[in-house]
Amino acid sequence: MAVVGAGVSGLAAACEIARAGRKVVVLEASERIGGRLLTHALADGTTFDLGGQWIAPRETMPRVNALLERYKLRTFHQVDSARMDLTTHKLSTLSRMTKAEWEWFLAKLDELAASVNVEAPAETADAKALDSVSVEEWKRSNLDSPYLRDIFDQIVRTEFTLEPKDVSMLYFLFCVKSSGGIETMFSSDGGSHTMRVAEGLAALCDRMAAELGDRVLLGYQVYDVIQRPDGVRIVAEGAIIECERVILALPPNQTQRIDFDPMLPRRRMWLMQRLEMGTVIKCFALYETPFWRGREVQVVAPELIVLDHTLDASTPAEGDRPAHHALVAFIGGDDAIVWSDRSPEERRAVVLDSLARVLGPEALHPIDYFDHDWLAEPFIGGGYSCYAPPGVVTAGLEDLAKPIGRIHFAGSETARAYQGYVEGALEAAERAAQEVLTALVHDTV
Amino acid sequence: MAVVGAGVSGLAAACEIARAGRKVVVLEASERIGGRLLTHALADGTTFDLGGQWIAPRETMPRVNALLERYKLRTFHQVDSARMDLTTHKLSTLSRMTKAEWEWFLAKLDELAASVNVEAPAETADAKALDSVSVEEWKRSNLDSPYLRDIFDQIVRTEFTLEPKDVSMLYFLFCVKSSGGIETMFSSDGGSHTMRVAEGLAALCDRMAAELGDRVLLGYQVYDVIQRPDGVRIVAEGAIIECERVILALPPNQTQRIDFDPMLPRRRMWLMQRLEMGTVIKCFALYETPFWRGREVQVVAPELIVLDHTLDASTPAEGDRPAHHALVAFIGGDDAIVWSDRSPEERRAVVLDSLARVLGPEALHPIDYFDHDWLAEPFIGGGYSCYAPPGVVTAGLEDLAKPIGRIHFAGSETARAYQGYVEGALEAAERAAQEVLTALVHDTV
Repeated sequence: MAVVGAGVSGLAAACEIARAGRKVVVLEASERIGGRLLTHALADGTTFDLGGQWIAPRETMPRVNALLERYKLRTFHQVDSARMDLTTHKLSTLSRMTKAEWEWFLAKLDELAASVNVEAPAETADAKALDSVSVEEWKRSNLDSPYLRDIFDQIVRTEFTLEPKDVSMLYFLFCVKSSGGIETMFSSDGGSHTMRVAEGLAALCDRMAAELGDRVLLGYQVYDVIQRPDGVRIVAEGAIIECERVILALPPNQTQRIDFDPMLPRRRMWLMQRLEMGTVIKCFALYETPFWRGREVQVVAPELIVLDHTLDASTPAEGDRPAHHALVAFIGGDDAIVWSDRSPEERRAVVLDSLARVLGPEALHPIDYFDHDWLAEPFIGGGYSCYAPPGVVTAGLEDLAKPIGRIHFAGSETARAYQGYVEGALEAAERAAQEVLTALVHDTV
Repeated sequence: MAVVGAGVSGLAAACEIARAGRKVVVLEASERIGGRLLTHALADGTTFDLGGQWIAPRETMPRVNALLERYKLRTFHQVDSARMDLTTHKLSTLSRMTKAEWEWFLAKLDELAASVNVEAPAETADAKALDSVSVEEWKRSNLDSPYLRDIFDQIVRTEFTLEPKDVSMLYFLFCVKSSGGIETMFSSDGGSHTMRVAEGLAALCDRMAAELGDRVLLGYQVYDVIQRPDGVRIVAEGAIIECERVILALPPNQTQRIDFDPMLPRRRMWLMQRLEMGTVIKCFALYETPFWRGREVQVVAPELIVLDHTLDASTPAEGDRPAHHALVAFIGGDDAIVWSDRSPEERRAVVLDSLARVLGPEALHPIDYFDHDWLAEPFIGGGYSCYAPPGVVTAGLEDLAKPIGRIHFAGSETARAYQGYVEGALEAAERAAQEVLTALVHDTV
């Protein structure tokens, strides 16, 4: 058995297969494991997650919580749930009338989201119509105030790291409903932004990789997957692997770079091509003091701000280790493309300047700054996830998970729920591993 | 010097470089040359083009005409310019009122197209607004009759082999204007459907490849392009090539599958990702007699027809060779994906059935049938071309042609005019070859 991709989904699938006593090897194109999880550690061991960072409590995300427990990793609560960005500021300054329009709009969104069939979004009543428009188009028909349109754009960009024009309205509603309604997109209490992992979320991958040991091979980019009646041949950089079955645990934009023989069904190729990888740069700034706490968000020259979304990312003191006061901010959507092409120095300058425009001049003088440009990851190409533009959900998005002969598919994008989250990556891994284990019994009988 | 891709653009660029006395090698991933040109020959030598087929006269397409002359290839006129499809039928049955609405709509389209800056579409007045909507969206705001909407859909699908929702309104208008107005999209007199090549259009590629001889290498898929201050290293299947400069003459959807070191600027990656390759299956049916001539198009059960576009593809008698009576039909857009996944037998049956619904039951009994599914070409993935969805033209589509260090770009998609045509492929080849020859002089001084 081979698994392609050593992100959380690939590693989890490989662990399940190994635990079932089957041989397995994990081929990873890049020189590190973890995929969209990546943890930055300070000298004193304090961690900041440059990729996936937050998780929800066990009630909503059982798999990731169980895995953290298995490896005895420790969680702590997100320090301060308040967002400190342009959106929050704008929302706080709404006039009574504009506020009423906004409330009406949110209610309408929630009402529409309630109609979505989460198990099978393509079977939602009115699915065709909702999937034929982009969020942008729908917004223009349902929201008059340019000010509110801006706010809504920013929320969409924060959730999807794409522009509203890039996302299907049906897909958006599906995400709204599966994350518990539009309000939870603003709050981090009990939602997907509730908890962090002391060792960093990427520690999950380190532990799984350690369990797999030398069965994880780095620097093995896969070029061809050749399927024959009796097995699969995988042609990778520097190796040819023959195995019974393979799990591809890659984002769809990377899966489509592999040559398949025989070719994959065209509808599957089309699905993978149409899904769009979000674009995001995640930035951390550390400060002597949490100067922003208790302060009202003030905005100077909002048009110069490149950050969609800013949160407190401080870590509490623990034993000898002091607390660290940190902000995490995101450049998402089209801005991420622009700033990915600039130098790290320019990026640092514009991020700190943007923070200062919202939180005051103290933001210009961090004691540490680091960021991660997910667009620059050659075997990922963006983040957080691949999302559905108009026309894709009703054209069979759920087929993305279906095996094709001896090829199985994992990766967060193939999950039924929490697509784009670690929870979704683990659900997909479970399903793919189960498919393979069942098939292997069958194959050898 | 290396050129990647042995389609018409890559071969033409390589020929120019070779003629200038420079060393050159052409790396082609597949086992044939020609790219999106492919000619099927009958036993008696009569040819039918499974890919690019028609050209316009010298006044509009000077380059392809000059090249045909250089190689002494013979052209003949498209036998019968009348289209014999559902669209033509529908247009012929319009009521006086619906006809007036249609005329108004065409006039509006032409008026809007007239405002487009063909040299720099992104600088068109109102470019942002026109590029922010799809053709679908614009149609819905400007065309009320569902019947006319259907007709318009079919025209868009015929031109772009994508659905109206997939194409930017600005890009559509740019194509309308550069092909001389909306009316020429129906007619083939003097337009891009005027002439054919007796030896088949792919003979152009055969002649260029013959000129290059063993400098064309088949089966050399390129995986990596590594750029260093003193040259380029190309890692291909079975070979590593070191050279001064490289021309990538691939469609953008294939260029983005190569790993670049250093990575390409993210905006370029984004442009290539966002362009969408059309989907098309081109089908030929040959008959004893041209039973359709002079007959009015009749349509039975239009909802069962999968063909967007049907033309007479007959060839005249020549010397001992008899005339052949043929129809050419296209399955385009979303239908092409569906029928690409079916068996050749099912496809033949549905194509002939569709022809019969329009032209009568004689269509069910051809003396020969063949088709080409462009989606099944592993290193092309569709046809005719990659087109711009909303947001791409104004985000810098023209940058697609700009060299990046020692990497140059050809391919029809990088042309200034006639993108997606052989003429555009040749223009791009000329430009890229010129860039390289100038740079080589510079490099060695």
